[in-house]
Amino acid sequence: MKVLFIGDVVGSPGRNALKEYLPKLKRKYRPELTIVNGENAAGGKGLTEKVYQEIRDAGADVITLGNHAWDKKEIFDFIDEKDDLVRPANLPEGTPGTGYVIKKVGSYKVAVINGQGRTFMPAIDCPFRVLDRIVKEVRKKTPIIFVDFHAEATSEKQAIGWYLDGKVSAVVGTHTHVQTADERVLPGGTAYTTDAGMTGPYDGILGMDRDVIINRFLTSLPARFEVTKGREQLNGVILSINGKTGAAESIKRILINDDHPFFD
Amino acid sequence: MKVLFIGDVVGSPGRNALKEYLPKLKRKYRPELTIVNGENAAGGKGLTEKVYQEIRDAGADVITLGNHAWDKKEIFDFIDEKDDLVRPANLPEGTPGTGYVIKKVGSYKVAVINGQGRTFMPAIDCPFRVLDRIVKEVRKKTPIIFVDFHAEATSEKQAIGWYLDGKVSAVVGTHTHVQTADERVLPGGTAYTTDAGMTGPYDGILGMDRDVIINRFLTSLPARFEVTKGREQLNGVILSINGKTGAAESIKRILINDDHPFFD
Amino acid sequence: MKVLFIGDVVGSPGRNALKEYLPKLKRKYRPELTIVNGENAAGGKGLTEKVYQEIRDAGADVITLGNHAWDKKEIFDFIDEKDDLVRPANLPEGTPGTGYVIKKVGSYKVAVINGQGRTFMPAIDCPFRVLDRIVKEVRKKTPIIFVDFHAEATSEKQAIGWYLDGKVSAVVGTHTHVQTADERVLPGGTAYTTDAGMTGPYDGILGMDRDVIINRFLTSLPARFEVTKGREQLNGVILSINGKTGAAESIKRILINDDHPFFD
Amino acid sequence: MKVLFIGDVVGSPGRNALKEYLPKLKRKYRPELTIVNGENAAGGKGLTEKVYQEIRDAGADVITLGNHAWDKKEIFDFIDEKDDLVRPANLPEGTPGTGYVIKKVGSYKVAVINGQGRTFMPAIDCPFRVLDRIVKEVRKKTPIIFVDFHAEATSEKQAIGWYLDGKVSAVVGTHTHVQTADERVLPGGTAYTTDAGMTGPYDGILGMDRDVIINRFLTSLPARFEVTKGREQLNGVILSINGKTGAAESIKRILINDDHPFFD
Ligand SMILES: [Fe+2]
Ligand SMILES: [Fe+2]
Ligand SMILES: [Fe+2]
Ligand SMILES: [Fe+2]
Ligand SMILES: [Fe+2]
Ligand SMILES: [Fe+2]
Ligand SMILES: [Fe+2]
Ligand SMILES: [Fe+2]
Repeated sequence: MKVLFIGDVVGSPGRNALKEYLPKLKRKYRPELTIVNGENAAGGKGLTEKVYQEIRDAGADVITLGNHAWDKKEIFDFIDEKDDLVRPANLPEGTPGTGYVIKKVGSYKVAVINGQGRTFMPAIDCPFRVLDRIVKEVRKKTPIIFVDFHAEATSEKQAIGWYLDGKVSAVVGTHTHVQTADERVLPGGTAYTTDAGMTGPYDGILGMDRDVIINRFLTSLPARFEVTKGREQLNGVILSINGKTGAAESIKRILINDDHPFFD
Repeated sequence: MKVLFIGDVVGSPGRNALKEYLPKLKRKYRPELTIVNGENAAGGKGLTEKVYQEIRDAGADVITLGNHAWDKKEIFDFIDEKDDLVRPANLPEGTPGTGYVIKKVGSYKVAVINGQGRTFMPAIDCPFRVLDRIVKEVRKKTPIIFVDFHAEATSEKQAIGWYLDGKVSAVVGTHTHVQTADERVLPGGTAYTTDAGMTGPYDGILGMDRDVIINRFLTSLPARFEVTKGREQLNGVILSINGKTGAAESIKRILINDDHPFFD
Repeated sequence: MKVLFIGDVVGSPGRNALKEYLPKLKRKYRPELTIVNGENAAGGKGLTEKVYQEIRDAGADVITLGNHAWDKKEIFDFIDEKDDLVRPANLPEGTPGTGYVIKKVGSYKVAVINGQGRTFMPAIDCPFRVLDRIVKEVRKKTPIIFVDFHAEATSEKQAIGWYLDGKVSAVVGTHTHVQTADERVLPGGTAYTTDAGMTGPYDGILGMDRDVIINRFLTSLPARFEVTKGREQLNGVILSINGKTGAAESIKRILINDDHPFFD
Repeated sequence: MKVLFIGDVVGSPGRNALKEYLPKLKRKYRPELTIVNGENAAGGKGLTEKVYQEIRDAGADVITLGNHAWDKKEIFDFIDEKDDLVRPANLPEGTPGTGYVIKKVGSYKVAVINGQGRTFMPAIDCPFRVLDRIVKEVRKKTPIIFVDFHAEATSEKQAIGWYLDGKVSAVVGTHTHVQTADERVLPGGTAYTTDAGMTGPYDGILGMDRDVIINRFLTSLPARFEVTKGREQLNGVILSINGKTGAAESIKRILINDDHPFFD
């Protein structure tokens, strides 16, 4: 079976790229499940219900989040009602929302777990221990398990990948907004990549206005980051998974921009 | 003209990969200049004179460094004698070594600058201002300028790339030990990639022993990181630069490992 | 001669405490110069012109700032017009405002310098080098030099204190909002204390609403910090300085709250 | 009843100060229990069994630790054998040692808990939740509860203090090596101070050699920190606690150095 994952969607440019390319990607790859990281989908920070719906309508079956999950306050109003919206599982007990969902896809069940790193990021619960516990629980129901691990440090991401190797179908990193080229199937059968990349402006800095960010580095003065305009890109990965064992068969990067146009 | 850059060489596995593939890469791409990041070349941390010589003998014309520059104390004994060894230029005034060199390559002069980021890293001088100043100085002598920007945060790396776009031939990131897939020539003619990746063990975590790193994350106890054994990889980029204008014509990722074997 | 320094004034409770106790402290100690840190004076974050004027009217001769200097945008409109408002000197070149002022006080001239640390704080210019350069410059005009060093880490604050010992009259720390008990005159004649403390609510957490802060630690969810209500405190130090040599003769903590009422 | 607490003992100067003043302080205050933070007692980093014994022999009934707990490897050999040695309770499950002990003192039982902060420190388990759980457990056995909260940020320390107010007898901060002047009994009956300070060299930077530390800040080069020589100091607090209710009656700073000599 196939799972398509799309990296952090940033603002309306990201949603536009999603609407343009998701149908094409589905025709090309025929994924049984499509997962989209939506932590930056509303104006570059957080998720509103309108934007949530827009991403669902564009073809996402499950939406994952990250450290920007709560940037739009209204998410607290709808996160608990949705069964296809996942926030990092290792946030403290009592956090609204859920850290994983299990979706029925034809004859398969696919678990989608979201985790968040702690290196160079806020101190939350241990992602290794929390993911370990959830994976054990989930494996009672299905061997097909996708983990979106949202983290900054390459060391922590690779460590989670190797730690979960053989226990989950895939560990796909998000958060840095830059796609990495280290996609591979680890020896135990887990597909891994450090970062799936970002879906949004192609000519910004992580999707944001360049002048504002550069000025911030130069002056250290406060600045309001804005999603930039112009050309768009889509970043993601397509996974092939053995539906019986849950082992990954392949992971392939998807990179669409003016320098890498979409081909059927 | 062509410039070959090899990402952070880690320990003896990295040096082995270098010795095996550098001759082949030179035959294939015929670079006029080969630059190697050597900050982890001696046992995973720092550079000794013996290892420096080994990398030079393997075919490196210039060696760049990073935050691990000083991990082996003996570097203080030889760094000032070498005209092909570059440490981050924005370290405080009075730091041993130099932040850039200009190498004669046939009829060309190529400047090689090393910079270091500050986000999630030690507080040193502003890389934007220091690189800007050096680039202005160097451009009086040559338009062919290669920058190894050693940094953690993707935002800071992309910001330096766009900041120097049109002023240098290439900004190639290092430090995260994971190759990124965002290589491109920016509109102003600067080749850019967020990270060239790492040359060393293929089955470690950033080149280090997996169990030690995972245990560190799980227990928070002190641990001695060791370069891991086993299969090797080489990561880098090959640049094509207009020798007259210094503008980049192309940047191409090089990734050699068991999943991506070398082809002539 | 005597210099009175008042630690970070937080919001209206801080300004109230200032208005109530500054006149009494002036009657008691007869300082020639009164310096107030005002980085949190407007609603807990930053400084408006109205609040600037309020603090001046309350009896401050010079107002220093810190990392919250720019939290109220309107400061950019008036900071360059004032000759008694000082922001951290080691902010990048081109930053609005000034890093030091020299005030005439009767027959004395007193230099007031503001510096900011980098440990656990934004990466700005090196405070050691910048303060060193300014101190050298200023000493041509006066030996009476007061440094408000705004920093988080006790190591960096003590290091600046010892580094400037014998070159300035006083290094008084700010930023942590907790008064330290290590005030002393260092061997070279520089009065030093790690933190002067905070002037504002007595029953908050650093002056802010307790429930909000505790909840933030418990949940890791975003929160809007608010200055808390209720009882007030004033924190500061009174310095006695030799007007001829600039050497400190004494430094004494001032701590006024319900547990330590003001005495004439 | 009375509890004496001594702040981070640094190296042999700290142990010397302990041996000199602890007997005098015991004669003066007659504490039923003496607790000493020993995380820096062996050469400035960690604790050996010999040094452990030296501190016990000097008069400590319980020794607490902090982030330097594991700096001397041999602690793993003896930490599990001691019933008077406490490491931070919110280290990950499976960490050697214990996070609290309950000591019989005449007719009283006193619980001593060690916690560690996460702001500007390694990501471990949530101190608020872990301390809350332990306090609930311990209160079944005794209302007299002493917490050494080892943390960097004043906000996190004050937050823990207020969070536990009314549930424990005292929250005394350690780690910054600078004594704070904010000691008080909070409204719920918990004695609180942000930092008890450091016992060791009086003329170092946090107890360490000044030149090395200043040079480190100036050059950003690696350096070996060494405990400095010369004059000594002792820092701590003496608490008076209602033996029936566990409520604190008073907290008083102890500060002994050449500027504040010991008085009977
Ligand atoms: Fe993101
Ligand atoms: Fe993120
Ligand atoms: Fe490296
Ligand atoms: Fe590095
Ligand atoms: Fe402040
Ligand atoms: Fe501050
Ligand atoms: Fe300590
Ligand atoms: Fe500590």
